[in-house]
Amino acid sequence: MNSEQPLRVVVWGENVHEQTMPRVAALYPRGMHGAIAEGIREHLPAARVETATLQEPEHGLSAARLAEIDVLTWWGHHAHDQVSDAVVERVHRRVLEGMGLIVLHSAHFAKIFRRLLGTSCSLTWREAGERERLWVCNPGHPIAQGIDRCFELPEEEMYGEPFGVPPPDEQVFISWFEGGEVFRSGCCWRRGNGKIFYFRPGHETYPTYHDANVRRVIANAVAWARPEGRWVDAVVNVKEPRERIAPKPSAQ
Amino acid sequence: MNSEQPLRVVVWGENVHEQTMPRVAALYPRGMHGAIAEGIREHLPAARVETATLQEPEHGLSAARLAEIDVLTWWGHHAHDQVSDAVVERVHRRVLEGMGLIVLHSAHFAKIFRRLLGTSCSLTWREAGERERLWVCNPGHPIAQGIDRCFELPEEEMYGEPFGVPPPDEQVFISWFEGGEVFRSGCCWRRGNGKIFYFRPGHETYPTYHDANVRRVIANAVAWARPEGRWVDAVVNVKEPRERIAPKPSAQ
Amino acid sequence: MNSEQPLRVVVWGENVHEQTMPRVAALYPRGMHGAIAEGIREHLPAARVETATLQEPEHGLSAARLAEIDVLTWWGHHAHDQVSDAVVERVHRRVLEGMGLIVLHSAHFAKIFRRLLGTSCSLTWREAGERERLWVCNPGHPIAQGIDRCFELPEEEMYGEPFGVPPPDEQVFISWFEGGEVFRSGCCWRRGNGKIFYFRPGHETYPTYHDANVRRVIANAVAWARPEGRWVDAVVNVKEPRERIAPKPSAQ
Amino acid sequence: MNSEQPLRVVVWGENVHEQTMPRVAALYPRGMHGAIAEGIREHLPAARVETATLQEPEHGLSAARLAEIDVLTWWGHHAHDQVSDAVVERVHRRVLEGMGLIVLHSAHFAKIFRRLLGTSCSLTWREAGERERLWVCNPGHPIAQGIDRCFELPEEEMYGEPFGVPPPDEQVFISWFEGGEVFRSGCCWRRGNGKIFYFRPGHETYPTYHDANVRRVIANAVAWARPEGRWVDAVVNVKEPRERIAPKPSAQ
Repeated sequence: MNSEQPLRVVVWGENVHEQTMPRVAALYPRGMHGAIAEGIREHLPAARVETATLQEPEHGLSAARLAEIDVLTWWGHHAHDQVSDAVVERVHRRVLEGMGLIVLHSAHFAKIFRRLLGTSCSLTWREAGERERLWVCNPGHPIAQGIDRCFELPEEEMYGEPFGVPPPDEQVFISWFEGGEVFRSGCCWRRGNGKIFYFRPGHETYPTYHDANVRRVIANAVAWARPEGRWVDAVVNVKEPRERIAPKPSAQ
Repeated sequence: MNSEQPLRVVVWGENVHEQTMPRVAALYPRGMHGAIAEGIREHLPAARVETATLQEPEHGLSAARLAEIDVLTWWGHHAHDQVSDAVVERVHRRVLEGMGLIVLHSAHFAKIFRRLLGTSCSLTWREAGERERLWVCNPGHPIAQGIDRCFELPEEEMYGEPFGVPPPDEQVFISWFEGGEVFRSGCCWRRGNGKIFYFRPGHETYPTYHDANVRRVIANAVAWARPEGRWVDAVVNVKEPRERIAPKPSAQ
Repeated sequence: MNSEQPLRVVVWGENVHEQTMPRVAALYPRGMHGAIAEGIREHLPAARVETATLQEPEHGLSAARLAEIDVLTWWGHHAHDQVSDAVVERVHRRVLEGMGLIVLHSAHFAKIFRRLLGTSCSLTWREAGERERLWVCNPGHPIAQGIDRCFELPEEEMYGEPFGVPPPDEQVFISWFEGGEVFRSGCCWRRGNGKIFYFRPGHETYPTYHDANVRRVIANAVAWARPEGRWVDAVVNVKEPRERIAPKPSAQ
Repeated sequence: MNSEQPLRVVVWGENVHEQTMPRVAALYPRGMHGAIAEGIREHLPAARVETATLQEPEHGLSAARLAEIDVLTWWGHHAHDQVSDAVVERVHRRVLEGMGLIVLHSAHFAKIFRRLLGTSCSLTWREAGERERLWVCNPGHPIAQGIDRCFELPEEEMYGEPFGVPPPDEQVFISWFEGGEVFRSGCCWRRGNGKIFYFRPGHETYPTYHDANVRRVIANAVAWARPEGRWVDAVVNVKEPRERIAPKPSAQ
């Protein structure tokens, strides 16, 4: 990434609930992806922030476009199965090369997240409009900058442990729920050359992506996940050794 | 460790509050260490479980005795500074060699724990007799065997995030507190050849070490932390190379 | 796993080179899987060690049989693509539940290994019959028991860094190659409830699986990877909260 | 760190061999620290790069100066014991707050490194002027930018495994030695809010810190280790809960 050049961000949205549930459409008239993109633009005015959705050809993620993305955010819930395996394969390769990936809420079950982590990514859940309080575990982490010791969302879906993921490289947030559960709600991993951040909040029936703290966290995560190098992975047959190999008896 | 031979466990107790606070003496007439040892014996009847306290010569941890310990549990609070640096050094070396170490509650600030982890081990706290609920993050982990999805302690001191430790190798429990906080309350690390488990509950003014779930977790942790090999660490000057080293111009 | 019951091990072999290359057939008249199984039996006489191959119905890994396996070892090279996705899915689920998996040599590119780790698993390579020396990084690790500071294989295929895997939880061996490369040749990961060990040596044209050190390492790894609990992963809708959730204005 | 402000780097040198060994003085007329600082200035011209040595008051690391350092590099060998514990304590606290630390060669045994990692940091060694080849394990890592698949140093001291450290968060380099050993020669860890990089080469009797690749790696590491936030660690008694705590029977 040339540091002169703006950070290129694509906010991917499943965009199904917005079409089928009036409550969601009312909360997010420009789509959940629209609200997420707006929040990133607020905090990273120099970035070039675009959106892409499931319904576009190749889900808006053609090979040519993907090659130009620095950080991709992903929200999905109802239609994980409709995401084509070819696109998942392509996104997977780009993350290993160095593209950042921000995985939001119910995208814990997105094909791309499960493929990168290799585990079940399962959890427990409840929809009861309860209060969530996200505690910062790592106040110096770039993703927590500008956030107080904790912040609250007055109503959210609950996700509870056990969360079926490999141990995070860094734990940024853990959530407390009014109904009695806890959840590792902000987790970092590195895979290949790419950085991955999972961020829990964001159920479609609440105005979570209009929340000031949530927007700041997502923008911080986008900046954190920017590529810092590029690894074009290759299986190389290195025929010429760098040192002399002694002839072996069995080779006779 | 010879598998024929019983597991040799020492429960170390600071044993100060038991002498100075009637409430603690009433809860733990044989000392907190006595109750902890009793719980381990219940679950690991084949183990040889002894105790040691701050007040004994060398705090009950002479070099000769330490050499025979497979797993050491540690509770301290008021008198971390009175633990001699020579004993800490000795325990440290034994953990790197393979001795298991179970660190309990306020021993997050024990010299030995800070030395092994290298970080501040700081946290937030409140004494308000509130309810704690410990959630299992990893139901298949040996330390969680026999424990339901979660268990509760009706009254405990609160410890809150941020917990100033390196990311745990494995997260076994996370706590929910009635007053609104969360905490990584069961954490595993490997250092050198030794296994370390930190377990949060156990404030001296509550009957926590009489609780059936707490006892089971500690006994599970003791079994998990048993040595699996022994590494006698040494700085070796390997004068003879295994391959021929070509003479270099500068050596002339 | 009932500790009274023998450890149940299955050695899976692709079993293609043994049929098509006389040199391999001569080295391994009962198959590479046969030699690997023999080595495990030598060191773990109480274990029940069986084999399974690609050519059997369901590759010898029916759901019923898999449910009874404690540790599976995997060697493949030429025919990764012929392993059915349904079997891979099934093995994947069993590893997350707690079955140990030992991945050997060219199985770094097996579907099951890439799926569990989520990365490219790529590397560099050379076939030149060169000497490999495996150094122990962690002399107290159970997998290194009985192994000296290092051991040598007189002729092996070379695998070189970069090895496209997530950072291992524990590094047990690193290889030095006569031709000038290095490789992380013994790596441990935990995924879900299962333990995974990757062990580099084992090219089909060399007698590697007859080597005493290699056999000991594989047997040690099988014992290390035994299940220690069982996690039946489930997505649970926990409708009843454990704490009272206050009514929210928006719910009216 | 204000991004407008130059990165503030201090190169710390033990500066003993330069005074006592003519061969070292000849190689490094302005000290090893002088050569290291020069290399960083070449690659990071906007940084403010200064030096400090053991012989200065407070070893050149007063509290006031440390508070203004973004990244500190550390070379020591002969005089680890002469570094005052008060200065080590102060550097330790600054790393946890977010200051980057680059630990060079024989500083694997520096008090500050052992304190941060909590392990023995032991290794094997040989002085035979042998060739070292450093392989890149992670070609997309910021510390490896501008480095080819590997690079060579014609003569170096050998360090061999086992290296007594906790598993690195990221492995950037592994070394191959002419005499037959391997070593994890470029390792990253995070502790508290600080980033730590250990880089193996740099024996005092060779011109290693004049090598172009070595200089680039050190400069890359300095840039990578820059602070990204600041955590003023504190133990806080949070007397007021955020949620109502029900009165308990025992409190009566």
